[in-house]
Amino acid sequence: MGRWEPNARERLAKAALELYGERGYEQTTVAEIAQRAGLTERTFFRHYADKREVLFGGSTAVEELFVNAVAGAPGSAAPIDAIAAGLEAVAGLFDDRRDHSRRRQAVIVANAELRERELIKLASIAAALADALRGRGVAEPAASLTAEAGVAVFKVGFERWVEAAEERAMSQVMREALAELKAVTAGG
Amino acid sequence: MGRWEPNARERLAKAALELYGERGYEQTTVAEIAQRAGLTERTFFRHYADKREVLFGGSTAVEELFVNAVAGAPGSAAPIDAIAAGLEAVAGLFDDRRDHSRRRQAVIVANAELRERELIKLASIAAALADALRGRGVAEPAASLTAEAGVAVFKVGFERWVEAAEERAMSQVMREALAELKAVTAGG
Repeated sequence: MGRWEPNARERLAKAALELYGERGYEQTTVAEIAQRAGLTERTFFRHYADKREVLFGGSTAVEELFVNAVAGAPGSAAPIDAIAAGLEAVAGLFDDRRDHSRRRQAVIVANAELRERELIKLASIAAALADALRGRGVAEPAASLTAEAGVAVFKVGFERWVEAAEERAMSQVMREALAELKAVTAGG
Repeated sequence: MGRWEPNARERLAKAALELYGERGYEQTTVAEIAQRAGLTERTFFRHYADKREVLFGGSTAVEELFVNAVAGAPGSAAPIDAIAAGLEAVAGLFDDRRDHSRRRQAVIVANAELRERELIKLASIAAALADALRGRGVAEPAASLTAEAGVAVFKVGFERWVEAAEERAMSQVMREALAELKAVTAGG
């Protein structure tokens, strides 16, 4: 929006994550974020409703991409393969955002309210995935269980992918986590 | 506590669920709960910290029972079988509490804050189960994935068990949900 503020949204997100890391999320104000980004508070509020949305504004895109990939998987695909297609699509979104994701994760892990917000977002994704699977003709409880399994893989895979020592692409980490889930559930 | 108040805790819980159902959770006060139960507010606060704890006071017992059963499963049991033993133990806790659980579920589903609290409790159980599995020598990410799978079965199985038309015992519903999870993850 406005040619005088190139990449304002990204600059604000970067400034916010820096400040959350340096001072803590609660101690950081919108005014400080705008100042660090060299922008005005008014510009901040054109891009984000509040300082929390800087952290969760991307969750809707993740959910949409995940759900659309599941809904758009070949009709012949088994439910778990539709979920795998969704994980693959989502991984593409994060490819060049590992540093950003690591910083974001550190902020969220340090704050109970943000951890709860993350859980709510994951539950929203699970509900939307179950809906998409039912739309593919999958019955209950299979649809909900497959959706929950998909979110479990996403959650555990994501936590692994942001670990300091992890260098593999997210798609590979997600494929491995899904294979591991299949192995543990087959193990009994 | 005190022989003049037999079953005070249970009477308070019953009165609270009745009122939450009749008036809504937010509209109900502790004074009204105590009055309906024929007890004093002071007695209420000897049993519950606040009106929300009436709904979630049992979650700690569920988590402990689940975790202890997983930790105490035979050393030779596969991780998913240890989880199955945990689900079996938890089901025993609910055997004669279906009416109570149905009323509780209706209150929680109707209130966003309570739904969030329920998600947080489930995440706490998942973390504790992963810990118990690591204590059994299960490596990551298998421990976290098996724990998340166990909570997915518990969540989806529980929602099914409280459905109006469902008459089977919880242990049977949980076994079926676990079998279904195994089937869907094997399906790809």
